[in-house]
Amino acid sequence: MQPPPSVSPEVFKDALKEMRGAVGAEWVFASQPDVDLYRDAYSLFWEEPGELVASAAVAPANTEEVQRIVQICNERSIPLYPISTGRNLGYGGSAPVYSGSVVLDLKRMDRVIDVDERNAAALVEPGVSYFDMYRHLRDRGSKLWIDVPDPGWGSLMGNALDFGGGYTTAQYRNHFEAHCGMEVVMANGELLRTGMGALPGAKTWTQYRYGYGPYLDGLFKQSSLGVVTKMGFWLFPEPEAYMMTSVNVPRFDDVVPLIDTLGELENANIFNGMPGVSSPVLFAGGKNPLNFPEIPEADEMNAMAEKSGLPCWSARLTFYGPEKVIRAQWEYVQSRFPGASFTEHVFVKLPLSDEDLARIHKPSFGIPSLEMFTMGARSRFELNPTDGHFWFSPIIPRTGEGFVEANRVIRQTCRELDIPVLLFSPPVSSWYRAFILVMAIPIHKDPARNRHLRQAVKELIRICAEHGWGEYRTAPAFQDAVMDTYSFNDHILRRVNEKIKDALDPNGILSVGRYGIWPARLRKGDRS
Amino acid sequence: MQPPPSVSPEVFKDALKEMRGAVGAEWVFASQPDVDLYRDAYSLFWEEPGELVASAAVAPANTEEVQRIVQICNERSIPLYPISTGRNLGYGGSAPVYSGSVVLDLKRMDRVIDVDERNAAALVEPGVSYFDMYRHLRDRGSKLWIDVPDPGWGSLMGNALDFGGGYTTAQYRNHFEAHCGMEVVMANGELLRTGMGALPGAKTWTQYRYGYGPYLDGLFKQSSLGVVTKMGFWLFPEPEAYMMTSVNVPRFDDVVPLIDTLGELENANIFNGMPGVSSPVLFAGGKNPLNFPEIPEADEMNAMAEKSGLPCWSARLTFYGPEKVIRAQWEYVQSRFPGASFTEHVFVKLPLSDEDLARIHKPSFGIPSLEMFTMGARSRFELNPTDGHFWFSPIIPRTGEGFVEANRVIRQTCRELDIPVLLFSPPVSSWYRAFILVMAIPIHKDPARNRHLRQAVKELIRICAEHGWGEYRTAPAFQDAVMDTYSFNDHILRRVNEKIKDALDPNGILSVGRYGIWPARLRKGDRS
Repeated sequence: MQPPPSVSPEVFKDALKEMRGAVGAEWVFASQPDVDLYRDAYSLFWEEPGELVASAAVAPANTEEVQRIVQICNERSIPLYPISTGRNLGYGGSAPVYSGSVVLDLKRMDRVIDVDERNAAALVEPGVSYFDMYRHLRDRGSKLWIDVPDPGWGSLMGNALDFGGGYTTAQYRNHFEAHCGMEVVMANGELLRTGMGALPGAKTWTQYRYGYGPYLDGLFKQSSLGVVTKMGFWLFPEPEAYMMTSVNVPRFDDVVPLIDTLGELENANIFNGMPGVSSPVLFAGGKNPLNFPEIPEADEMNAMAEKSGLPCWSARLTFYGPEKVIRAQWEYVQSRFPGASFTEHVFVKLPLSDEDLARIHKPSFGIPSLEMFTMGARSRFELNPTDGHFWFSPIIPRTGEGFVEANRVIRQTCRELDIPVLLFSPPVSSWYRAFILVMAIPIHKDPARNRHLRQAVKELIRICAEHGWGEYRTAPAFQDAVMDTYSFNDHILRRVNEKIKDALDPNGILSVGRYGIWPARLRKGDRS
Repeated sequence: MQPPPSVSPEVFKDALKEMRGAVGAEWVFASQPDVDLYRDAYSLFWEEPGELVASAAVAPANTEEVQRIVQICNERSIPLYPISTGRNLGYGGSAPVYSGSVVLDLKRMDRVIDVDERNAAALVEPGVSYFDMYRHLRDRGSKLWIDVPDPGWGSLMGNALDFGGGYTTAQYRNHFEAHCGMEVVMANGELLRTGMGALPGAKTWTQYRYGYGPYLDGLFKQSSLGVVTKMGFWLFPEPEAYMMTSVNVPRFDDVVPLIDTLGELENANIFNGMPGVSSPVLFAGGKNPLNFPEIPEADEMNAMAEKSGLPCWSARLTFYGPEKVIRAQWEYVQSRFPGASFTEHVFVKLPLSDEDLARIHKPSFGIPSLEMFTMGARSRFELNPTDGHFWFSPIIPRTGEGFVEANRVIRQTCRELDIPVLLFSPPVSSWYRAFILVMAIPIHKDPARNRHLRQAVKELIRICAEHGWGEYRTAPAFQDAVMDTYSFNDHILRRVNEKIKDALDPNGILSVGRYGIWPARLRKGDRS
């Protein structure tokens, strides 16, 4: 048993004893085999000294037990790293950001506390996975969907708090923004409820989230300020029909007005699903559509298009709603793209038939799936199985020029820095009005290779920042490096976050180091 | 010249001298006539000792000057109360919440820094009013709308930060949620930029607002933590057409499914404008539609409906979009209300003709207006002019039962407590998924009457809280009383806010007392 840094073996032993008293001995894990289960399966430090490992783990059954655990750790300055289901693969998994932390595993808190069918909202505990929620809704004959990420085995709460996204309409696919109301155990063990949860007896906790005075919920995004133990989510009423279409434009330069008009249509609510951009000509010949190649020069791409007869670009639109409405929307969309050609890829009425179910992308229908995992292993596109991957996801401008520039610069930089790429996305609109590029970078259980990758990706982060592209989320190995790029005014963003951290968690015990924010004692010098 | 509490005349004199050096003597106001201009025109303390008054005012021209003023005050613990245009009538106007504060008047900072036509976003300074923005957009031939509140003379930024709302679609009429990116002068004079503004060179400041790590912007809602000097806003592309319709249902009990289905349609994006609920039978005979009477018992209301042939309830829907789309949406809506009757009140194509302009509600078309001011003075409905009013706005459940109960309890309580009502709204959906009731309570320049009102409204706040209804916003006279009702776990919401306040503004100078959050030195005992 290795205690956390700066905690004596005696104090740690005593803390574990108290924890056992609080949650029952069977829910405190301190043996090496048990603790090893919390290693990051996709670690970038595999079998290196820097590997992020827990000292122990504890799995409380309810909020009161969470409060007790937090108090035990706060009294002893023991670092505590909450996870919900601990998936989040490619962004750190279930391992703490600060090695030696005790993992606070909330998987046992898996109750769907309430589904308000009339107001299309749910209140859940941290351990409720998308699969749990899906089954809960289907079992009770609900007509509501929860927007799911891909893969869907993670926790609603964990995904939302780490700022994950899904596939349906703008109000729901931004999982953090689809939340309404939180209950949070603060670092001293006290319980905070935000929004209308702060008003005893209010029935609007999952209806109005802003409450009175400052809106605090954002503090708990990608953060280290509290342990969220309940969270409300807005659900999406099952639509009558779904349609996926594309607008295809012939020439290289068309990408600029294509994306501008796509944005305008989204801003004007003409379609409500997630928009996307692709390139038929670049994917000709069955190339992996998840691996967007480097965009050639205009002349070359135009020549390719002329030769093949394929469009240079294609915008994908998805519509959820009554058949008549979405057909009218699609008709209007077509009127806005003179000179384009149009394709209707999918049209289905809900509920899905078995035949539909076999051909559609399940997460676009609020159905959790694990099919994503074929990506790195057994798909027809990737014959060299990896030991995992991590995600690299910069925010880029929502313009044609911005997309082309980011694709080229990042592709070239990866080549120059010897960064392999398993998946390279087109612009993805996980959130209303913003584009990200999402890359999966494969890893192998090879320390030398991982050392190279860590260094190279830090360089990639720096080069992206020079171009004005910042990551929205990243794996623990890069959380400090990314925070370093949000550097306006001598890193005031980090400094303000540190002041809030010190105020709300003066002993610096919660999620130490998460997203580059460290407690006072660890702010300078060696943190290892 | 009366210095702020706990500030000596010498220190204050010296501070004013420094401020004159920073912004120019003509922009520091310390004479009584000048300072009187910052009194709240709708004060609830008119000519009473508790009247909220400034000690001086200062009007900087730019962010650097704001920083300098904040530093001057921070060094001397001088309370500073930022206003943008200082309207906000009925919620405190331009007067500070803590009497004796220096008003930081940002009206000179009135630049529209940028309008991104392609991405439908603007970046503005605090002094930009809705009229300014409207003219700016029209002058440059923009096809974009800014969602406006009613009246429209206030500041985009001030309205959004105080959590004001407008009338168009859900993404835009919640003015705080329609923001993207902030620049904030912190209490020590340092400059923070949130979202992608923290990444130097990013071109996505008005596209992606969540940045990296905790999302801090909510801290500046209804808050005292910083002086916001730039703020991005999302704009709405002018739609092809607008339609306002109603669904009318005959009997009392129909209000429950009416509101449930209305909510479902909104949640499913079947209409995008602001929904509303009214009662044709209760407004028969030309009664002021802004003054919703007490809802009678079911039998009585059904009898009234039968006698008059009017529906008990009516749901108003508004649609913005291409004509074909909104007609298809309206057709679908009708299919969802068997047994209802339907009315098409307004259908107009954009741009508006002069004739349209004369008959429509301008704010629903992104056009600022001052017509609202006829309400308390010269309308045909109110023959007894007031000296102003304040707003009372509790969040109520989005259900038929919740609406009926809140209407009755609040109407009865106002009667029992002798609280006059100038305006009593139906359920208003200023924000997606939530209902508020909005009341305007008239005031007169009569100290005895105002003393009674202050006491009675505090009692109303308490009674509403007992029913689970909390105010989303309130006038300074009631900001402590409302915060007292958000009392979960021994007022932890306020205590957490106080910790953040102490961390970010240790001398407690900014917007002292705003929304019931006081700096450490003023937390207990007499604040007057």
